[in-house]
Amino acid sequence: MTNEFKTVAVVARRQHNNIVDTVLAVEAVLEKFGVQVIFEDVTAGYLPQSTNPGASSARKVLPRRELGHAADLVVVVGGDGSLLGVSRDIADTGVPIVGVNRGGLGFLASVSPEQLEKQLGEIVTGDYIIEEHFLLQARVFRDGKCIAESTALNDVVLHSGSMAKMIEVELWIDDEYVYNQRSDGVIVASPTGSTAYALSAGGPIMHPNLDAIVIVPMFPHTLTSRPLVVPGDVELRIKVSHANDTAPQLSCDSQVHTTLQVDDEVVVTKFATRLQLCCPTGHSFYESCRSKLDWATRLGGRAPA
Amino acid sequence: MTNEFKTVAVVARRQHNNIVDTVLAVEAVLEKFGVQVIFEDVTAGYLPQSTNPGASSARKVLPRRELGHAADLVVVVGGDGSLLGVSRDIADTGVPIVGVNRGGLGFLASVSPEQLEKQLGEIVTGDYIIEEHFLLQARVFRDGKCIAESTALNDVVLHSGSMAKMIEVELWIDDEYVYNQRSDGVIVASPTGSTAYALSAGGPIMHPNLDAIVIVPMFPHTLTSRPLVVPGDVELRIKVSHANDTAPQLSCDSQVHTTLQVDDEVVVTKFATRLQLCCPTGHSFYESCRSKLDWATRLGGRAPA
Amino acid sequence: MTNEFKTVAVVARRQHNNIVDTVLAVEAVLEKFGVQVIFEDVTAGYLPQSTNPGASSARKVLPRRELGHAADLVVVVGGDGSLLGVSRDIADTGVPIVGVNRGGLGFLASVSPEQLEKQLGEIVTGDYIIEEHFLLQARVFRDGKCIAESTALNDVVLHSGSMAKMIEVELWIDDEYVYNQRSDGVIVASPTGSTAYALSAGGPIMHPNLDAIVIVPMFPHTLTSRPLVVPGDVELRIKVSHANDTAPQLSCDSQVHTTLQVDDEVVVTKFATRLQLCCPTGHSFYESCRSKLDWATRLGGRAPA
Amino acid sequence: MTNEFKTVAVVARRQHNNIVDTVLAVEAVLEKFGVQVIFEDVTAGYLPQSTNPGASSARKVLPRRELGHAADLVVVVGGDGSLLGVSRDIADTGVPIVGVNRGGLGFLASVSPEQLEKQLGEIVTGDYIIEEHFLLQARVFRDGKCIAESTALNDVVLHSGSMAKMIEVELWIDDEYVYNQRSDGVIVASPTGSTAYALSAGGPIMHPNLDAIVIVPMFPHTLTSRPLVVPGDVELRIKVSHANDTAPQLSCDSQVHTTLQVDDEVVVTKFATRLQLCCPTGHSFYESCRSKLDWATRLGGRAPA
Repeated sequence: MTNEFKTVAVVARRQHNNIVDTVLAVEAVLEKFGVQVIFEDVTAGYLPQSTNPGASSARKVLPRRELGHAADLVVVVGGDGSLLGVSRDIADTGVPIVGVNRGGLGFLASVSPEQLEKQLGEIVTGDYIIEEHFLLQARVFRDGKCIAESTALNDVVLHSGSMAKMIEVELWIDDEYVYNQRSDGVIVASPTGSTAYALSAGGPIMHPNLDAIVIVPMFPHTLTSRPLVVPGDVELRIKVSHANDTAPQLSCDSQVHTTLQVDDEVVVTKFATRLQLCCPTGHSFYESCRSKLDWATRLGGRAPA
Repeated sequence: MTNEFKTVAVVARRQHNNIVDTVLAVEAVLEKFGVQVIFEDVTAGYLPQSTNPGASSARKVLPRRELGHAADLVVVVGGDGSLLGVSRDIADTGVPIVGVNRGGLGFLASVSPEQLEKQLGEIVTGDYIIEEHFLLQARVFRDGKCIAESTALNDVVLHSGSMAKMIEVELWIDDEYVYNQRSDGVIVASPTGSTAYALSAGGPIMHPNLDAIVIVPMFPHTLTSRPLVVPGDVELRIKVSHANDTAPQLSCDSQVHTTLQVDDEVVVTKFATRLQLCCPTGHSFYESCRSKLDWATRLGGRAPA
Repeated sequence: MTNEFKTVAVVARRQHNNIVDTVLAVEAVLEKFGVQVIFEDVTAGYLPQSTNPGASSARKVLPRRELGHAADLVVVVGGDGSLLGVSRDIADTGVPIVGVNRGGLGFLASVSPEQLEKQLGEIVTGDYIIEEHFLLQARVFRDGKCIAESTALNDVVLHSGSMAKMIEVELWIDDEYVYNQRSDGVIVASPTGSTAYALSAGGPIMHPNLDAIVIVPMFPHTLTSRPLVVPGDVELRIKVSHANDTAPQLSCDSQVHTTLQVDDEVVVTKFATRLQLCCPTGHSFYESCRSKLDWATRLGGRAPA
Repeated sequence: MTNEFKTVAVVARRQHNNIVDTVLAVEAVLEKFGVQVIFEDVTAGYLPQSTNPGASSARKVLPRRELGHAADLVVVVGGDGSLLGVSRDIADTGVPIVGVNRGGLGFLASVSPEQLEKQLGEIVTGDYIIEEHFLLQARVFRDGKCIAESTALNDVVLHSGSMAKMIEVELWIDDEYVYNQRSDGVIVASPTGSTAYALSAGGPIMHPNLDAIVIVPMFPHTLTSRPLVVPGDVELRIKVSHANDTAPQLSCDSQVHTTLQVDDEVVVTKFATRLQLCCPTGHSFYESCRSKLDWATRLGGRAPA
């Protein structure tokens, strides 16, 4: 049995309780399969010295941004949030990524610590599925010049910068005028992000394979505003047309932030490269929905039909 | 220790699997406390002969409508749905009612079969709380004459009679015009009913002590329609102003149905007598919400703040 | 200038006030352009004798189902509802259809009576755009046999048959289990239907070009139920797993109805042929949204930001 | 005809285009009726010299906080937002307040500039109605000590301080535990505020006479969260139990802001004194709803029933 992946990078986004144990367990499984392991430098920094007798005395480490180029699989230990950050950083390399979820099943992080050896072992030896997820790319234009850009796996959020403050935005899709909207802001989400922040704001759940983007108003001043789903290959242009006493903010995956000015234009399109999300065989979107959204729970008090 | 309730009536609305066991267990507890037990005639009909050696050979039985006059407590075995029906039937007597819930905690039926002896025993001996719930009264007027009326503990629903068919209704509150609305129908719910059908339709949860009525549109044609909460002492008048090819229906608690015509007026007010709902000490509305609405379940995939 | 369309069929779905005038105006425009006009037989039946001096004394008439084969354009006089019915009837022919809207702009019927001569003239002479809309196809299987089928341009609705009665359905997508749901029913809508009934039930607006289907629960018993958008090429299988005292109904576009039984399976897929919707140049989906959904209306009372 | 109000204070919250004209018109009407006029000092500061020949050369002015004590009616020129601020400032005096609305009808500001002379004249001479609106009072406790407090006419909003960041709050009502909630924040609104920010967040519309408070979650992490309406005389206690990397904020009417810390408790109750809102005879809440929420607008595309 030969390995599908020869060199695997490991990242754990933050130092949490117990995460070290899971990272070491990941290391042990990978070394057991004879895989070359590279650690993100930050992650390696809070690990104890390797106790694996067969391992070289020092771990191989690299900065985050080089991992996608040096490895042919990236393992992220954490939750969906951790995976978001690493995904944006390696998205352009096209290298597959797999998440080991600490704390229940994730929509993205699909390997559970309890089944680490079995699931990670199967993946390393070629028994896995790839789910492609597209990323969004947000670029900010001021006076015709692009002054900031970022990718987002879940969502691009343009908001007033202060809760309970309204901004007015103007939405154009493929150069066609759509509407002016007064609200606290607007969420632009990929199918991947449709089960995250956009869902809290009343957006629909979108299957990961769907080639679509959803635009969800945040506390719209207009009662007739509704989530709008458009084809994935459009160009969205959102202009900040008015903002009272606030500095509007742009957030990508709630992790990368840019301060905007009135008249700035935010252009959102699909990013050129898709994320290759690696999952254990049998991983299922609908199963994640049932488990994470608790579709089985029912309300009571209603008379039987 | 003397009993608070000397004569207790027992009703089980439908013959379900296992319900007989629970009814017999209720009988045993009541007889242990020396309480006089009266059965609804229909309920008694599907019970086996009493095996209690101390009991008289035949059970005392009465028709449903006489129970409230003969007993000083009515025990309903079933779920919230069963309790709705009995409540309407005895509402005018003011006699307290207690529900033994088969299948999890109910909003209304608060005694669990597992704790039957303890909880029912405490109630019988005076250790209980009374929650007052007001009922709605719906009267249908045609050509100025009242042609039908019913009470409702949860809700009065006026609908088109066919799903996906619209009716137009005209709403007046205390003789003030409110709106014309085209929709599949309208739900008028008490606080008690706010956690039942009205909640599925997007209405708010209302605390049982609130003196208020909520009007919830069903699939309104107008995007600006919203649930409307009004003081409990108003008179609602809903006129069927238009109905295409359908025979509109009025439902009380989804259990009592009347067929309407165009130009019929439905007048909804609070019913004169409140339901005296008897619950074990410690019964809590918010605890019911947490348990039945599953307030603890969280959605995932969102980046940590 | 030669005509793009040589033979044009005209249908007006129901006899309403004033519709005759509009139909005659359509006839006059078409004859002015030298187009051969065919009337649906039912429509012709309530028209007065032709007074056009140049016209042959009798109109050419055909049954509805033959229009798509005999004409190379079908004009529907009415509203979006009328267009739904004709669309289903001619969908398999691929012949373009254009709607003359009586009563404001429609999402589908895009020619206004006020601009009839200009807009219809431009269309006849080749100045128009084609919007492709896919239809859904619903087939009902009982004991493995297909017992009914229909197309739908807007939506396929499976409901309990009585409002405020619940059914339980089981949803499978491409043979993968999704969920069991207790509710009044479920709406399966195309992008075209997303601005109709599904929108009233809380579904998102979907752009007509989107290749997607939305599944919207109707008054779901479970608070965690949400609209679900899936790729347009899936096969949905909805099984009626439980229905209390009701005869569940299947409705296509609220116009074609089938009575179901427990254990029936409804299979919904895209229909093989797309509707060719013919619109005046400049017709815009977002403009229809702004105008019909009243996106400009704002709510008040909120403090300025 | 004697005046009902002898001394009337006039406030215009901000210097906007044209507002000076309306303020001068108000002054003219009041002087015509022989009323003693007092100006808020800030407002007087941007008025031109009085040109009224009968007026004393200098206007009488007072600081905002003294107006309620010196006058027996306060006129606010602006919109609902302006009226919010003045209401909080004079709430404890119980003096009636009337709003002259610039820019359409308001829910609170009910005198229109077009009918200024007629409506204000009628009010001054005693032909008016009083709508009582209760205010909320929010107090912030840190380590058991009250460190900040404010009233609010519309709403008290506790939020994470950064959009798209979650906080966790713990809600207690009358010392009974309700729930822990992870969300962007929570809106506590009076009936008056139910048509403002809370409505954008999915809360119900509440009639101004209702003695109730609504608690509306903002983008809750839990899909089962719903608006909750409780009796107006409860004590709400909201504890900030967790906040990642943010400084949570408390806002009263989006106008008064306090920065919170983890473990701070916000106690919200009704304020002791009600606002006496003075309106022209015939002013109607439902008419305001119809006009401001545009209840007449209908969506299209749905087949006729």
